[in-house]
Amino acid sequence: MSITAPDGFVAAGCHAGVKRRRYDMALVAAEDRKPVPAAAVFTQNKFAAPPVLLDRQRLAENGGQAAAVIVNSGNANAGTGAAGMADAEAMAAAAAAALGTDPRDVLVCSTGIIGTPLPMDRILAATPKLAKKLSAGGAHDAATAILTTDHVAKEAVIRGTTFTLGGMAKGCGMIAPNMATMLAFLTTDAAVTSEEMTAILRDAADRTFNTLNVDGATSTNDTVILLASGRRGRPDLKEFADAVHRLCEDLTYQMARDAEGMTRMVLLRVTGAASDAEARIAAKNIAENNLVKCSWYGGDPYWGRLLGAAGSAGIDFEPEKTEVAYGGIIVSRGGTNADHDEAALAAHMKQEKIEIEVALGLGAGAAQVIGIDLGPGYIKENSRTS
Amino acid sequence: MSITAPDGFVAAGCHAGVKRRRYDMALVAAEDRKPVPAAAVFTQNKFAAPPVLLDRQRLAENGGQAAAVIVNSGNANAGTGAAGMADAEAMAAAAAAALGTDPRDVLVCSTGIIGTPLPMDRILAATPKLAKKLSAGGAHDAATAILTTDHVAKEAVIRGTTFTLGGMAKGCGMIAPNMATMLAFLTTDAAVTSEEMTAILRDAADRTFNTLNVDGATSTNDTVILLASGRRGRPDLKEFADAVHRLCEDLTYQMARDAEGMTRMVLLRVTGAASDAEARIAAKNIAENNLVKCSWYGGDPYWGRLLGAAGSAGIDFEPEKTEVAYGGIIVSRGGTNADHDEAALAAHMKQEKIEIEVALGLGAGAAQVIGIDLGPGYIKENSRTS
Repeated sequence: MSITAPDGFVAAGCHAGVKRRRYDMALVAAEDRKPVPAAAVFTQNKFAAPPVLLDRQRLAENGGQAAAVIVNSGNANAGTGAAGMADAEAMAAAAAAALGTDPRDVLVCSTGIIGTPLPMDRILAATPKLAKKLSAGGAHDAATAILTTDHVAKEAVIRGTTFTLGGMAKGCGMIAPNMATMLAFLTTDAAVTSEEMTAILRDAADRTFNTLNVDGATSTNDTVILLASGRRGRPDLKEFADAVHRLCEDLTYQMARDAEGMTRMVLLRVTGAASDAEARIAAKNIAENNLVKCSWYGGDPYWGRLLGAAGSAGIDFEPEKTEVAYGGIIVSRGGTNADHDEAALAAHMKQEKIEIEVALGLGAGAAQVIGIDLGPGYIKENSRTS
Repeated sequence: MSITAPDGFVAAGCHAGVKRRRYDMALVAAEDRKPVPAAAVFTQNKFAAPPVLLDRQRLAENGGQAAAVIVNSGNANAGTGAAGMADAEAMAAAAAAALGTDPRDVLVCSTGIIGTPLPMDRILAATPKLAKKLSAGGAHDAATAILTTDHVAKEAVIRGTTFTLGGMAKGCGMIAPNMATMLAFLTTDAAVTSEEMTAILRDAADRTFNTLNVDGATSTNDTVILLASGRRGRPDLKEFADAVHRLCEDLTYQMARDAEGMTRMVLLRVTGAASDAEARIAAKNIAENNLVKCSWYGGDPYWGRLLGAAGSAGIDFEPEKTEVAYGGIIVSRGGTNADHDEAALAAHMKQEKIEIEVALGLGAGAAQVIGIDLGPGYIKENSRTS
């Protein structure tokens, strides 16, 4: 069910021919085809793809509402210029025609290779058939159709006191390989305004999706969209915000587990930084450092590389005040080796999910990221697109 | 000859037992054991190793002079705290005793694993023997003894009108694997002051060593030292500066060719940026992007990833003004695909050294870096230290 679990939404997925065989188009729509409040968070990349530019513009112009979201995978419609913008508009128009709604209330997302025009003939031919398939049972088809190099569909549902929240996502990191991007679509039957949802979604995305760092790259197409049918009335707003956060967190972990070539996931916490901002910089610098990532792949508790990465992050850093722990086992104190239980450490390093804390001992700043190891699988998936 | 090619220097290398079998200690000294003008450039990492801290302090205190440099490989004496500082001092003192010079005029460098104390018994036992081996014929032994995961020794000589400049280096990038760091040692028989050499060396390092980006990491031990015996009198300072630049460039290319797991080297030029500083940021962001690096490994001219990396670098960026060329063949213009000669492009991508220009079309800012591809060899060398 996932995205159709909340009252008032239907979904579908189909094979249009962007990819060779697999499902490659998805549609999520308000059951009555009427616009509902919508909120979205987009990539910060200045090389943003036409569908991102179009959605931003539409939500700004129509006051934050949408009747449907049409998505294709296999081609990102990025690096396609003005022709790409016309293609995104045509996709929205085709969906609107099939649904009998205003094109300005249709959002568009694309994910896949960059720099190649969308096969618009196939997309336009498939859209009416896709719209006919819309049903409450179509959620899993839609969740499958948005995938690129993902191995599994990512879906989640949270049932609140007075509302339901559903979601699906794709992505193997902030950006994934050939086939780029993370996309997430959330629906709810709670009655919330676009403004309320925007604030809640932005905060949740910051604390979940934006803490996942597969390769430090930022996609041209990243998009998270939340639609609210309002069918079940006003929620407790705090409970609702918390549910959005938990749903995003659930989808984030599903993405992390499916990351490109991933063999090990790392919950990396930087504490004691001069500020939260400095903690975030340090965490990012550590999680993106290839020497660190290789040591994670090898299950090697090489704390010297963590401090080396933190020390070159451009933040306040005093080796003698630092402390590094793997799975709660302190291995370094004051910038040098600390005696520790080798057997317990080795056991922790064998886990698929390891925990690291780098304590800087300077202030109260803290940040957490989910890091992914760097192994041969990542290179295999990313060295050739054609 | 390399480092002993200039008049007035002797060198030696030996096996002390820091590594299992190979040479692991080097000594370079003024032939008459008297201090000569010296200049140095060090890592910017705030987790700098004790030998770096010691050398910085000594050069500041003695007005920029040195009679010798003692080096060990296999252990970086980093992440070793106050005990590590005492070890670095003891190394210098041992060399000074063997040479009959003041310990304050001996510089110390270490490279290798982080976080493990130096085996001082072996180092101190080997030092007198090492000093006895000093000769004009010892340059290659010294160049071999400073290596870690390097496959070949890196040496170069430039003969100017009135002077000779020699050099040796180790390193597989700004930081290399288990065994970290880049080190370079230069000697000359020109008569130049410490101040003159410091300015010249800093500028040369910025334009050579600092443009090499294997993995974006900054070592705890990076050091470049230049010693001048003065035996052949005043040089033309411009010719001398140019020679230092060319020697550093030669050593940089030798390091790039030997980079960890490297199969392809990329001369990446960013032009048309709003400023040189923005060009450097863009070049760094591109050269460190794992998706880009994987595409280099695969010989894939995936320009979309280059623009995606530039667009997320936080600099001024307007897709419609950009142009991307591989080997002078323009493959993208205005942020979209540009018609090009596919056969010529494929031929260029097969080279071991490819050239890329990302033109941003905004201003006169330019920067060049030497990037290295990311292949399975890098992971193999970096996933386990023990």
